[in-house]
Amino acid sequence: MHIVSTVKDMRQVIREVKVENNTLGFVPTMGYLHEGHLSLIKRAKLENDIVIVSIFVNPTQFGANEDYDIYPKDFKRDKQLAETAGADYVFYPTVEEMYPTGYKTSVDVSEITDRLCGASRPGHFKGVTTIVNKLFNIVEPNRAYFGLKDAQQVAVIQQMVKDLFMNVEVIPCSIVRESDGLAMSSRNVYLTQQDRSAALILSKSLMKAKKIINEGERDLKIIRNTIIESISKEAPVSVEYIEIIQFPSLEKIDILEGKVLIALAAKVGRVRLIDNVILEVQK
Amino acid sequence: MHIVSTVKDMRQVIREVKVENNTLGFVPTMGYLHEGHLSLIKRAKLENDIVIVSIFVNPTQFGANEDYDIYPKDFKRDKQLAETAGADYVFYPTVEEMYPTGYKTSVDVSEITDRLCGASRPGHFKGVTTIVNKLFNIVEPNRAYFGLKDAQQVAVIQQMVKDLFMNVEVIPCSIVRESDGLAMSSRNVYLTQQDRSAALILSKSLMKAKKIINEGERDLKIIRNTIIESISKEAPVSVEYIEIIQFPSLEKIDILEGKVLIALAAKVGRVRLIDNVILEVQK
Repeated sequence: MHIVSTVKDMRQVIREVKVENNTLGFVPTMGYLHEGHLSLIKRAKLENDIVIVSIFVNPTQFGANEDYDIYPKDFKRDKQLAETAGADYVFYPTVEEMYPTGYKTSVDVSEITDRLCGASRPGHFKGVTTIVNKLFNIVEPNRAYFGLKDAQQVAVIQQMVKDLFMNVEVIPCSIVRESDGLAMSSRNVYLTQQDRSAALILSKSLMKAKKIINEGERDLKIIRNTIIESISKEAPVSVEYIEIIQFPSLEKIDILEGKVLIALAAKVGRVRLIDNVILEVQK
Repeated sequence: MHIVSTVKDMRQVIREVKVENNTLGFVPTMGYLHEGHLSLIKRAKLENDIVIVSIFVNPTQFGANEDYDIYPKDFKRDKQLAETAGADYVFYPTVEEMYPTGYKTSVDVSEITDRLCGASRPGHFKGVTTIVNKLFNIVEPNRAYFGLKDAQQVAVIQQMVKDLFMNVEVIPCSIVRESDGLAMSSRNVYLTQQDRSAALILSKSLMKAKKIINEGERDLKIIRNTIIESISKEAPVSVEYIEIIQFPSLEKIDILEGKVLIALAAKVGRVRLIDNVILEVQK
């Protein structure tokens, strides 16, 4: 496995890879890899000749009071994990490489970025679409793999790719969970032991909602309240949002039907976590 | 020469062209081709194996009170001119093809889009960068050719390409002028005979400015006033802006030195025209 740190070198690799007509799978990450990321790399390796993983903590998608400065990093460990999972190249640029002095261009998706995480993290998705656009242009992948833990991110990137006619297939991949149900996240490392335990209520409440829908419940208020009541039992957990919406359009729904996303964000102690479940609902 | 009207068909053409390792030159236009456009097509043909010309009057770069609805069109004539100049394909999509229902994504370059034409045409360059980004993603050209009559547009697109790491070389091409000096423009067709004559003062005043600079004048106020006084003699001409700035940074200058752009916009009768001159100035 090779480490590439400049755009110029990455382009050279891509040129060589493409000459031989290899297909190229791409897994953009912010590093501190966990089983969720590794599942993306493994799938990319199954479906493509060459796999490129990027590790870049993107400053423009963090708000002023967020955790950019303390975002967990362990490049040595990431390198080993990526290689074992099947990565051929790791793209590991500096901030200056991705945002050279005097940069002025941004890519923005409107409307569907205003809600859910976008409501409490203004500018977050603009940062995400801008960096993903840059990375796609550098790597020119055939397929790019994203975890569905951030379902809104998947929807936003799919919208950008469609609208700008980018020549890449975005492949959403299932959430990977710890054995007790907690969705894998690089931020889980921030949790105290007590909060780690309380955080379980997030996945549990979503599974409960899924269960009552599968049993026939169609009243949005009842479903929402079931989640809220379930979470309210855990003192360290404060809900930021719970949304039941269409996926991937992220449109509000009145009647539960079709592909439905139940997404939530909550603070567990001082750590902001997200989780969701997507289900196919018959009317 | 082939006419292609859908993104899907265009992609298919590109795939075929690329398999044979042909280089691809691209000339994006809004149609109603004149000698300026044809010079771009001819140059593209000289420097590439295959030339694609797009003809698309982009609605998102027109303001509410501008001339989108009456923008001149003559596809039959354009087709013949493009073919004679050396185009292999004309990409001629509908508005619905380029902006399908529900599109939400835009590409924006900040700061350098606020001045010159950007000041009086808010949103104009956002429309330009968004459509050019789409077109670049569809056509995947090696080189793209733009006329320097809209020098700001060239600077903005170069900035976008650099910032987003787009894999295309932007090639600025000299302004083509009528024998009497008027810069070629599709909008010249709007001019009455009287206004056509008055419009000559734009290029004349720029040439005058160039002359006095070449003769040693370095005082920005004097140069600017020379242009203003020259233009003020023509009653139907009202100046929108005259700017003397660095190119391609479009930064304000205190001292005339290096690559300098003198750009102006004016209404001639009811027609808005732009013109400029770029010169290399020794201190």
